[in-house]
Amino acid sequence: MENQNLKTYPINELPHYKVHGRTVPGASPLPLFFNGSAIEVNVSGTELWIELTVDYAVFEPWITCEINGELISRQMLLPGHYTLCLFRGMSPEPVKNVKVTRELQAMSEDPSCCILVNGMKADGAFSPVPPKKYALEFVGDSITSGEGTYGAREDMDWIPMYMSYSRGYARTVADTLDADAYMISQGGWGVLCGWDNNPRSNIPSRYEKLCGLSCGEANEKAGAFAPYDFTGRSIDAVIVNLGTNDASAFDQPAWHDPATGETFCQRRNADGSYNEEDLARFQRAVVDFLKMLRRDNPQAHIVWCYGMLGYDLSLPIADAVNQYRSETADRDVMFLQLPATTDETFGSRCHPGEPSHTRAARLLIEYLRGCLH
Amino acid sequence: MENQNLKTYPINELPHYKVHGRTVPGASPLPLFFNGSAIEVNVSGTELWIELTVDYAVFEPWITCEINGELISRQMLLPGHYTLCLFRGMSPEPVKNVKVTRELQAMSEDPSCCILVNGMKADGAFSPVPPKKYALEFVGDSITSGEGTYGAREDMDWIPMYMSYSRGYARTVADTLDADAYMISQGGWGVLCGWDNNPRSNIPSRYEKLCGLSCGEANEKAGAFAPYDFTGRSIDAVIVNLGTNDASAFDQPAWHDPATGETFCQRRNADGSYNEEDLARFQRAVVDFLKMLRRDNPQAHIVWCYGMLGYDLSLPIADAVNQYRSETADRDVMFLQLPATTDETFGSRCHPGEPSHTRAARLLIEYLRGCLH
Amino acid sequence: MENQNLKTYPINELPHYKVHGRTVPGASPLPLFFNGSAIEVNVSGTELWIELTVDYAVFEPWITCEINGELISRQMLLPGHYTLCLFRGMSPEPVKNVKVTRELQAMSEDPSCCILVNGMKADGAFSPVPPKKYALEFVGDSITSGEGTYGAREDMDWIPMYMSYSRGYARTVADTLDADAYMISQGGWGVLCGWDNNPRSNIPSRYEKLCGLSCGEANEKAGAFAPYDFTGRSIDAVIVNLGTNDASAFDQPAWHDPATGETFCQRRNADGSYNEEDLARFQRAVVDFLKMLRRDNPQAHIVWCYGMLGYDLSLPIADAVNQYRSETADRDVMFLQLPATTDETFGSRCHPGEPSHTRAARLLIEYLRGCLH
Amino acid sequence: MENQNLKTYPINELPHYKVHGRTVPGASPLPLFFNGSAIEVNVSGTELWIELTVDYAVFEPWITCEINGELISRQMLLPGHYTLCLFRGMSPEPVKNVKVTRELQAMSEDPSCCILVNGMKADGAFSPVPPKKYALEFVGDSITSGEGTYGAREDMDWIPMYMSYSRGYARTVADTLDADAYMISQGGWGVLCGWDNNPRSNIPSRYEKLCGLSCGEANEKAGAFAPYDFTGRSIDAVIVNLGTNDASAFDQPAWHDPATGETFCQRRNADGSYNEEDLARFQRAVVDFLKMLRRDNPQAHIVWCYGMLGYDLSLPIADAVNQYRSETADRDVMFLQLPATTDETFGSRCHPGEPSHTRAARLLIEYLRGCLH
Repeated sequence: MENQNLKTYPINELPHYKVHGRTVPGASPLPLFFNGSAIEVNVSGTELWIELTVDYAVFEPWITCEINGELISRQMLLPGHYTLCLFRGMSPEPVKNVKVTRELQAMSEDPSCCILVNGMKADGAFSPVPPKKYALEFVGDSITSGEGTYGAREDMDWIPMYMSYSRGYARTVADTLDADAYMISQGGWGVLCGWDNNPRSNIPSRYEKLCGLSCGEANEKAGAFAPYDFTGRSIDAVIVNLGTNDASAFDQPAWHDPATGETFCQRRNADGSYNEEDLARFQRAVVDFLKMLRRDNPQAHIVWCYGMLGYDLSLPIADAVNQYRSETADRDVMFLQLPATTDETFGSRCHPGEPSHTRAARLLIEYLRGCLH
Repeated sequence: MENQNLKTYPINELPHYKVHGRTVPGASPLPLFFNGSAIEVNVSGTELWIELTVDYAVFEPWITCEINGELISRQMLLPGHYTLCLFRGMSPEPVKNVKVTRELQAMSEDPSCCILVNGMKADGAFSPVPPKKYALEFVGDSITSGEGTYGAREDMDWIPMYMSYSRGYARTVADTLDADAYMISQGGWGVLCGWDNNPRSNIPSRYEKLCGLSCGEANEKAGAFAPYDFTGRSIDAVIVNLGTNDASAFDQPAWHDPATGETFCQRRNADGSYNEEDLARFQRAVVDFLKMLRRDNPQAHIVWCYGMLGYDLSLPIADAVNQYRSETADRDVMFLQLPATTDETFGSRCHPGEPSHTRAARLLIEYLRGCLH
Repeated sequence: MENQNLKTYPINELPHYKVHGRTVPGASPLPLFFNGSAIEVNVSGTELWIELTVDYAVFEPWITCEINGELISRQMLLPGHYTLCLFRGMSPEPVKNVKVTRELQAMSEDPSCCILVNGMKADGAFSPVPPKKYALEFVGDSITSGEGTYGAREDMDWIPMYMSYSRGYARTVADTLDADAYMISQGGWGVLCGWDNNPRSNIPSRYEKLCGLSCGEANEKAGAFAPYDFTGRSIDAVIVNLGTNDASAFDQPAWHDPATGETFCQRRNADGSYNEEDLARFQRAVVDFLKMLRRDNPQAHIVWCYGMLGYDLSLPIADAVNQYRSETADRDVMFLQLPATTDETFGSRCHPGEPSHTRAARLLIEYLRGCLH
Repeated sequence: MENQNLKTYPINELPHYKVHGRTVPGASPLPLFFNGSAIEVNVSGTELWIELTVDYAVFEPWITCEINGELISRQMLLPGHYTLCLFRGMSPEPVKNVKVTRELQAMSEDPSCCILVNGMKADGAFSPVPPKKYALEFVGDSITSGEGTYGAREDMDWIPMYMSYSRGYARTVADTLDADAYMISQGGWGVLCGWDNNPRSNIPSRYEKLCGLSCGEANEKAGAFAPYDFTGRSIDAVIVNLGTNDASAFDQPAWHDPATGETFCQRRNADGSYNEEDLARFQRAVVDFLKMLRRDNPQAHIVWCYGMLGYDLSLPIADAVNQYRSETADRDVMFLQLPATTDETFGSRCHPGEPSHTRAARLLIEYLRGCLH
């Protein structure tokens, strides 16, 4: 009953495979750092296995497996070193396209959390996986990490089970446009500060590392904290979806670091309007991040989208985009409002559900079709 | 066979009726100036007729008739003085709600174009028509005039047949939110100038007249050019949908008035970007119009929406709205991007078709639900 | 302002036109007997008018006008002799396809009810209107007459306003399959008897006349009562949608004709089941009608569909179709269940609304695609 | 990091749990015999595990896990004895509803294939799981086994991965109607014979055993082959969806058993019609199965549905239902045609995809709403 024809391939002996998301070229084992990070193969044969090393302290990672472009499985990964069967019993000749994708965002709060792909076992032959027509990078917060895309409306726990790449807008956009997706997103984070006014929870400070959103030794060893080599890829469009947590910060108490005494707060005026200075530093953060994105992705169209959890900072963000354009004369930057999630389209955790992501994706797809050539 | 029980009511003897859209209180005959302008009655009896006087030189008006909230008929009006049957053969007791609505925008280019309601004939009793929960004003161009909402994709004539209130986003928004709608829109017009750089084709210059978009003696006599008495109504939200023709102007040759020698042109720079001065005067027009709207509608939430035919001026409009907010400290103004019409959602005349209007309406409905109380 | 180039064409001088539905070839004036009966032209020029003679005693006819395949207008016809403008102000060169269609079924209860097309006025040239790929005949009752496809849910009057060809399943099926439609349907009628047990209200007794469903002198003069020449057409599929009123009859008191003393009743047994004899005569009527349909349409696929207002007679009808097949060895006959209308899909008069018709149409379209070649 | 509070409960010590599908009351370990067979618990605490024993020779079983009614995971089960984590990291107080469901049908061709639930590990408290409002039994073939509901259009392998309960019509019907579902279905089987004329592949011969569709020692030991005690449940409606493979048989060569010399074949006449004798024995099988179903489920409404993969046997089945009704005077039996799957709604393996199942489910839901009280 055991399949005697299975051959084991360590990653560095796999004849052909494709890595999705930011990665260290040639890394073996292969870390899957981000939501959307994936290994994809074209392989013949009757059976395919993947060999993983998985760890975490608090937040267990989840993966999906797609075969010939269709989602077949989604499951929690337990810690340890083991192999998972991806398919079996198939006709040997046809080449199957298989993609194993990390569902869970890089976890900035769990130093142990990591998935390493050690290799594969197969009884068929591997063939090359071509790149897609376009390359897109999605930069965001919990929305882009797919929080709320799984789970029931009443589910409120902040746990990996409810986060996904598989039901988020980024996947739909990338798949529909025949694009490879790079993801970098973190729940609770902003451009200037996090939802709780924590000024360290800002994406720009981590954007230029390979995976600055992860932490811990295992990830460090895998290369996560090295400067990312932006010259190794050519992004057609960067889609930023940030600002939602920066808006929340205005309604939260000041953040205080007992260790350093440091404190940070985005304030409202007595009449409820945003404090001008605080708004200005938020907008400055937007402008500065746009400059960074442009520096790192010189050829990319940049679109800042916003709105899926409310339009509060729409006008200030548009203003900052205008400011950036006039400071730089860079016109390849746009602001796109995404439809706010409604009672009918919420998922779990008061976050956008799948229908809200689908709607946002449609708007982005339509928009990007006009930009990409 | 003739119904002997029909009684004729001149408008000023109709016991109860409701007028939709800007009107002269108590006018008899009753002019229907705008798309969306309507007479609505609640009436019992078996039969109802409307007595009209209709005229035009070039562009014939169209009307719809709704019974109990459902569209029953849509037809072209021939010139002359005549009666039309709205229903017949119905059970006498139930009260029927009947609304006859002008489909065609006020025609700034046809001095003869007008619909006058002289009265009704009925064999039942009229009862009051209550106001809706909210009152909304929609200010716009051809999109708001419903150009393209009827007709086949290949139809390109600029004729009344293809324009409507019945399939436009404004009707859907108003009906869904239980709101009365005031309409003021003109195809080809802008905030600063028309699609062809004609600086007279700007809505603000006509906004404060009762119906500054019409022309000719008949409309003058009906009161169209008088200053509109804004104190006679209380609008909950003003929805502006302008900028599309201002964007076109940048791509058109200069407008030239042979009579006065006057000339006008919105220019692009050599690199394709908008000329800064010209963009600034467009933005100034937006700011000034917002001030006018606020003066005339002190209690209204104002939302400037834009995008159904392209996002070209999204950022400049958002900028202008920001400018207005900082000049006035008025925060009850918002910018809302509407989804651009796509290949799949175009109607006739390269204009948004019904599915595009439906989509825009959904976004506005969701947005306004958060503003109206 | 008057268009001096308009030329008047009596029907028999119209160079090209197409008649939809059963008709008398070459008739002038041209009667539109049935719902779905229409005159269609391809014409260039700026303007087109139709000249009508309309009459009725109780039930006024309605028409629609489609231009280039899109519904543009729907209106009630007042009695008299007059012309209606179908379009005006269009670019002269393009050929426009224009179709004027009767909405109202032939009215077996109104001897005066008729629409006669006397001719057209145009300033362009007429060109031939080709036949569609297929020809379908739809035979039915109120469902096929589109009762309830217009009007509000609470509207219960039996009046023409609520009946239509434009929103019925037959139109959708025919348009989608690129087919010409022949209609013959009457509200309240059945295969054996009407909803009220009236045995004269049966479609088979009228099927072989040109328009046996109309009455009165005007229709007689127009040729309605002559035997229909089935050799003049070749139907690809006959879609019968009957049985709904035959089912109702079982729940109604006996019908009694005071003039002749004749009486008729479909009975239930004490336990609520159908009386076997009465059911058998219903089934015999189905079998006999199938034989008639086959005789008159030797090459047609016949599909008996049923269910939009309940499945009560599904099994007896299927049984009768089986009986017909075994009696005749004719296998080109099928039974198709259509989805019952639900709370969400009712229109006015407790009849299928547009969504129910759309759903039925989809099923028929899919089914017929497998039959037509 | 290990959760010290986890307590292990063998099945027979679990304070509260609910088993879905036919089962042996009190069995420990608990076998999940059928697609749709499931264990459901209501439990508080932060973490929950399930302890399984899984085996198979060829066809590996798959499961899904739903939490609070939402699908969270779907995965292949490897052989062995192990525990799977169902959730972790949740807030301790709220009671979570957790359901682990077998996706794969009972495998009549794999004697080793089985899932046994040995118990659970939890750090919270179990509370009762109430029965649903209704109980339904679904009897069918590959359609009811959800073949084709996962996988890409081009996937043609007959493997467990592409079969499911989670995307089949039965789940949608049961969940929407608030009903518990009993499933008994087998790909390739019929009422009289299988798709290949194998007369042993008939569902009636196995219906009265607990799980006559499984085989092998492990299943026997678990009680699968014992007569099923129908008195232990009260089904509100039995939904039969059989006939599709009986129709295929008419187009296949004769089945031949080399061991016994036995042969079987459903034949067509020279003109393509069904051989009358063979059709009659098919219809007799339908009638006999209806009698069995009535005997075993005296209070149930029975609906025989058919059509998702073609209408070929619609009329013969309806005929047989009629025959059954006249033989028994049992009127609580109906025939319901389900929409044939179209090019747009196929899934993998030329079987109905999820949209086709959804459409069938809608029809069944609407129909059953009228039957259930």
